Amino acid sequence: MAGYYHLPLYEELVDQIQKLPSLGRKTAERIAYRIIEMSDQESDKLVKSITNAHDKIHRCKICGNYTDKEICSICDDPGRDRSTICVVTRPKDIMSFEKGRVLNCTYHVLHGLLSPMEGITPQMLTIKELMERLKGGNVHEVIMATDPSVTGEATAMYISRLIKPLGIKVTRLGYGLAVGTDLQYADEMTLSRSIKFRNEI
Amino acid sequence: MAGYYHLPLYEELVDQIQKLPSLGRKTAERIAYRIIEMSDQESDKLVKSITNAHDKIHRCKICGNYTDKEICSICDDPGRDRSTICVVTRPKDIMSFEKGRVLNCTYHVLHGLLSPMEGITPQMLTIKELMERLKGGNVHEVIMATDPSVTGEATAMYISRLIKPLGIKVTRLGYGLAVGTDLQYADEMTLSRSIKFRNEI
Repeated sequence: MAGYYHLPLYEELVDQIQKLPSLGRKTAERIAYRIIEMSDQESDKLVKSITNAHDKIHRCKICGNYTDKEICSICDDPGRDRSTICVVTRPKDIMSFEKGRVLNCTYHVLHGLLSPMEGITPQMLTIKELMERLKGGNVHEVIMATDPSVTGEATAMYISRLIKPLGIKVTRLGYGLAVGTDLQYADEMTLSRSIKFRNEI
Repeated sequence: MAGYYHLPLYEELVDQIQKLPSLGRKTAERIAYRIIEMSDQESDKLVKSITNAHDKIHRCKICGNYTDKEICSICDDPGRDRSTICVVTRPKDIMSFEKGRVLNCTYHVLHGLLSPMEGITPQMLTIKELMERLKGGNVHEVIMATDPSVTGEATAMYISRLIKPLGIKVTRLGYGLAVGTDLQYADEMTLSRSIKFRNEI
């Protein structure tokens, strides 16, 4: 029997793809097959989109939202209400609010939720940066728009306890949101209602 | 209300990822988020694995299997039985046979299955190349190892009709129950064939 056939370049590609979220071995193999069979132009486009996004997109210095400039277009917009900050889990959530044109305030991206089980501590989120922004004294309301999940609730509670001593109103998204779901996938109507019926916490 | 926030570099990345097989919008967004947050080293590794695989892996000139040389290591192996060719749908199937060290023959990769519904015609597969190989006169058996599906069966039948006039034996993979599975979940066709192809013990 001849030696076991294997192709290291193929294995390396499947390994790298499998490291991406939500992808199992079989899907990774299907994707690897597709990549090998792509035209050079298609493969170029894929690689360029990855390189461009990774190299040029970074966190806004003020709010943590994704931008290809130093400050994101929302923080840079003079028409925005800076007295209200909406705190979200991830940049995608801002896109959801903006698509529905639900808010005209500024945002703050936590880049995660507190989770002792997964070892995610307050220091790993952008809570310190949020507190720095609030010390300016111009903010009158902070809307906690984290996911309506256990970790989302816990994070909102944790942060609201830090903010309240500053005398700033803290509100939570109204429960039009279905409990246990991801905020990033909520429809516009639900988001809009959750803003209208927000409660002080 | 300020202008609609969007980030073209992000949208382009999500679009490109979504073109890959088995990936919907939500998974593509999760992957895009991961790519942006990767370390430079991780992103480099991913991009290099894609570029290397796409640029260096191509089809073996003889059998259509993936290789980074002109001829794949199986076709290049003097210890292989060249009188038998096992015809498979995709390179992945060769890896399955080789992992199990089931065969010591050479292979031929069709790169697809005939499917009039999806517009996949014989000209789009490597059937012409297979017939060229058989004309050499040294092959005594062709094992049709296409999937046991409707299109896999149809493709095996189509090709076997082309080969038979050459006086070469054509065989099909044995049908029966998959090892390690539960009989109660086997479909009727599989059960019926497992009875038809029963063996004395």
